[in-house]
Amino acid sequence: MDEIDLAGQVLAGDRLALARTLSSVENGTTQGMQALNSLFPHTGKAHLVGLTGASGTGKSSLVNQLVLYYRKSAKLSRSKNDEPPLRVAIVAVDPTSPFTGGAILGDRIRMRDLAGDPGVFIRSMATRGALGGIAAATGAVVQVLDAAGFDLVLIETVGAGQSEVDIARLAHTTIVVEAPGLGDDIQAIKAGILEIADVLVVNKADLPGVENTERALRGSLGLARPAPKRVFHHGQLVSVPEQDEPHSPSGAAWVPPILRTIAIDGTGIPELADAIAAHRAHLEQTGGWQQRDRGRLQAELDLLLQNRLLTDFRSRLKDGTYEDVLAGVLERRISPFQAVDELVKRNR
Amino acid sequence: MDEIDLAGQVLAGDRLALARTLSSVENGTTQGMQALNSLFPHTGKAHLVGLTGASGTGKSSLVNQLVLYYRKSAKLSRSKNDEPPLRVAIVAVDPTSPFTGGAILGDRIRMRDLAGDPGVFIRSMATRGALGGIAAATGAVVQVLDAAGFDLVLIETVGAGQSEVDIARLAHTTIVVEAPGLGDDIQAIKAGILEIADVLVVNKADLPGVENTERALRGSLGLARPAPKRVFHHGQLVSVPEQDEPHSPSGAAWVPPILRTIAIDGTGIPELADAIAAHRAHLEQTGGWQQRDRGRLQAELDLLLQNRLLTDFRSRLKDGTYEDVLAGVLERRISPFQAVDELVKRNR
Repeated sequence: MDEIDLAGQVLAGDRLALARTLSSVENGTTQGMQALNSLFPHTGKAHLVGLTGASGTGKSSLVNQLVLYYRKSAKLSRSKNDEPPLRVAIVAVDPTSPFTGGAILGDRIRMRDLAGDPGVFIRSMATRGALGGIAAATGAVVQVLDAAGFDLVLIETVGAGQSEVDIARLAHTTIVVEAPGLGDDIQAIKAGILEIADVLVVNKADLPGVENTERALRGSLGLARPAPKRVFHHGQLVSVPEQDEPHSPSGAAWVPPILRTIAIDGTGIPELADAIAAHRAHLEQTGGWQQRDRGRLQAELDLLLQNRLLTDFRSRLKDGTYEDVLAGVLERRISPFQAVDELVKRNR
Repeated sequence: MDEIDLAGQVLAGDRLALARTLSSVENGTTQGMQALNSLFPHTGKAHLVGLTGASGTGKSSLVNQLVLYYRKSAKLSRSKNDEPPLRVAIVAVDPTSPFTGGAILGDRIRMRDLAGDPGVFIRSMATRGALGGIAAATGAVVQVLDAAGFDLVLIETVGAGQSEVDIARLAHTTIVVEAPGLGDDIQAIKAGILEIADVLVVNKADLPGVENTERALRGSLGLARPAPKRVFHHGQLVSVPEQDEPHSPSGAAWVPPILRTIAIDGTGIPELADAIAAHRAHLEQTGGWQQRDRGRLQAELDLLLQNRLLTDFRSRLKDGTYEDVLAGVLERRISPFQAVDELVKRNR
């Protein structure tokens, strides 16, 4: 099957073609890139929802319940407004577990609940590097799912590091999940994540300490929100203009709600779905939707550009030049900064 | 004071000049870069020790106690072997808390214990981006402290994300700190960090659950270590050759010890210092020291090169070209990949 067919079959709803395209895209093959180019004009419709939180917060169960709710509630309300149920894709990303298969394990549990529903598609991100990092690979995978016609793409990530912040930037709506009893100083550790949160969830709300967790979140939010505007940004990207910072849309301010859920019995799931819908409506009314879209696509462009420039630069260097200059650094004759000057000079 | 003087004064042990140089370097000023170039030939002597762990593990107290121990034990043993006490620098990095001052707060508590000791220097990293990300900035700061003659540079980071892994790669010896009761599934979340751990510490070892934590660590180590070799790498860097992977030195294998500590009363601190010294000796005997040095400096070079290529590329583009091409992406006329092709074509 050639690449035109592959993209066409994805657009026609062929799940096998979709799975193949995602693998090709993740692996950065020529076929994958061509399919992505063909599919890209069909993107821009899906609501991209990021969901992040530390391990132990019950994040994956929450995602499962949310998707089950979307599928069921849509069916229930179908008689009323005749709308088809939302089609939902889940992208599970775990940048901290590259080889133990954590994401793949979660995927299996998930499959038990959601398998067989043609309106649900689940993808675990196991690869990194092919497109220049997990954030770039996730971005490309999300584009394919968007083009494939999913109404909602849930991007689930683990942890609170910079990678997670980068991945969360791919979303229109970012949900941060907390749980009681996971440490007494979330104020400090979560501040970076809280700044990008649109919806806060305290899951496992039946556990003792839920009030403390909620209070700590409220306190941290108070600290995080009025701080001077700061562009969360992957290190190598330097040029997103201030007005494009995707998390301060013009218009009325969005105050992130703090919701309690108990994923295992479904408590609070309808309210979470409502909050997600409300945030989408807010973005559409304030122009934030376009703003986040722009910030996201510019970040993706910059990342890809950077990788391309390095690849091109390398291919132009004479054999041995790089090693030669690196040796000067290892022997402490020249600093890494001087080495960069030298490489650029020799590349001319 | 010009930049030659600044570097000279740093080498002469002037603390004010050191603080100024660090700020200039962190901010990426010309003066800072020139000072770094002058100082770089004097680097390569310090033992670079990374220490990472989640918030709530008591990591900062552990660092304080360790440094106090180095300063005191060196003084105590001075009569025996007449060696001067180790000079220690601490670099506190918190990529997840860019603006709430988490690192600065820890710094203040720390100052109370260690202030006034001329053999200790403490630096909190608050900046990111100037040198192309926190990892690059930390690398440069560590170089200045190395040149300034500190015997040991302790790089303390929070969390378990990719940024922390990148920063940990800057070290010769990486310590991962755990504590009982911080979540029941550290097997999954910590696997990425465990792969790079040279020494494991279970701090707060007086708390219940210490055996469970230790058992979980042992189990995770068993999973993490024999896994197929995988280069932990910042997304944008693609070319570190397999043989340079700095955490698999040739020669005898190092089995990461698991130590119990109670930082607040100093329990286990001498054993931790011994483990750090043993790992250094191991690296020196097996050639791992040079190997890690090489891996680290190559990663720094690649990161700086990448930033430079992007800056140069931008400066050569005609006004409006970038925006023009970006607009094509935003309007879904061309994909980000096609946009990169277009930018490269127009840049010729």
